[in-house]
Amino acid sequence: MRLSACLVTAALALAACKPAATPPDTSAAAKAAIDAANATWPRLTSTAHADSIADLYTADAVMMPPNMPTVHGRDSIRAFFAVINTMAGVTLALRAESVWASGPAATEMGRWTWTWAAGVTPPPGMPTADSGKYLVRWVEENGRWLMAQDIWNSDLPLPTPPAPAPAARR
Amino acid sequence: MRLSACLVTAALALAACKPAATPPDTSAAAKAAIDAANATWPRLTSTAHADSIADLYTADAVMMPPNMPTVHGRDSIRAFFAVINTMAGVTLALRAESVWASGPAATEMGRWTWTWAAGVTPPPGMPTADSGKYLVRWVEENGRWLMAQDIWNSDLPLPTPPAPAPAARR
Repeated sequence: MRLSACLVTAALALAACKPAATPPDTSAAAKAAIDAANATWPRLTSTAHADSIADLYTADAVMMPPNMPTVHGRDSIRAFFAVINTMAGVTLALRAESVWASGPAATEMGRWTWTWAAGVTPPPGMPTADSGKYLVRWVEENGRWLMAQDIWNSDLPLPTPPAPAPAARR
Repeated sequence: MRLSACLVTAALALAACKPAATPPDTSAAAKAAIDAANATWPRLTSTAHADSIADLYTADAVMMPPNMPTVHGRDSIRAFFAVINTMAGVTLALRAESVWASGPAATEMGRWTWTWAAGVTPPPGMPTADSGKYLVRWVEENGRWLMAQDIWNSDLPLPTPPAPAPAARR
């Protein structure tokens, strides 16, 4: 009896723990938090809330926009979106396609859509609609999921550069 | 004796496992594998080895190039690089800046540099040099680290679109 009790105890002790090779799967919690954060973007962009957008990032976040240098830190990210916010009628919508999480970190792949309000004419050189893909690494800090690294690009082809000027006629 | 032996057994069983809340840190192994894979890019691109480049990706990898649609799967990625490889004199170099790993997955942030061999004139519309940033999610499959999601963009500003044609003179 004592031996079998001992085996049961050992078995219970082993059953109570999980192998270290399996990181905790926090995908469901991360996905829910990421979906909730993403759902705020259309309102925050269309109402020009650069402060609230910056608060979705960690203090030392790295934002990698296309066709410009990397932006380092929440303060610079806030300044970036303050410039975006000077363009009236912009709405940016984000949609997570996949989220892979492990413990307090997650990587999200998704798609973004940039639209102008009806009746708004985009500034010269900007497309009337734009969309593309992104990859974001999120971290959980004090119970909140925040963006730590963020990169995106557009599906639209590059604008055609100006053709060389024709030779002047004599 | 039997009880103490039992306690020792239970204690050993518990000591053999680690708390599930701590994912195994595979960062060092992942970083080494990623650095080794990255080091092959200059040779593989300058010698037009699209097959070997594609083998750095998982079978169902998602590649997200700038200014074109997402590329799905290793076969399509191979075809993408076969097109790149038709441009003679291209060298693409990659450098990991940070790698965050947990168990069999890792996310890498890095920088890429695209150069042309001396004496090669880039095709019309392509810059003489280009560089930018990337984010890649890697997974370990059968002991090999492979790229599963890959996105990048350029630091270069967009080409200026052609100015509207001036009104014809009468």
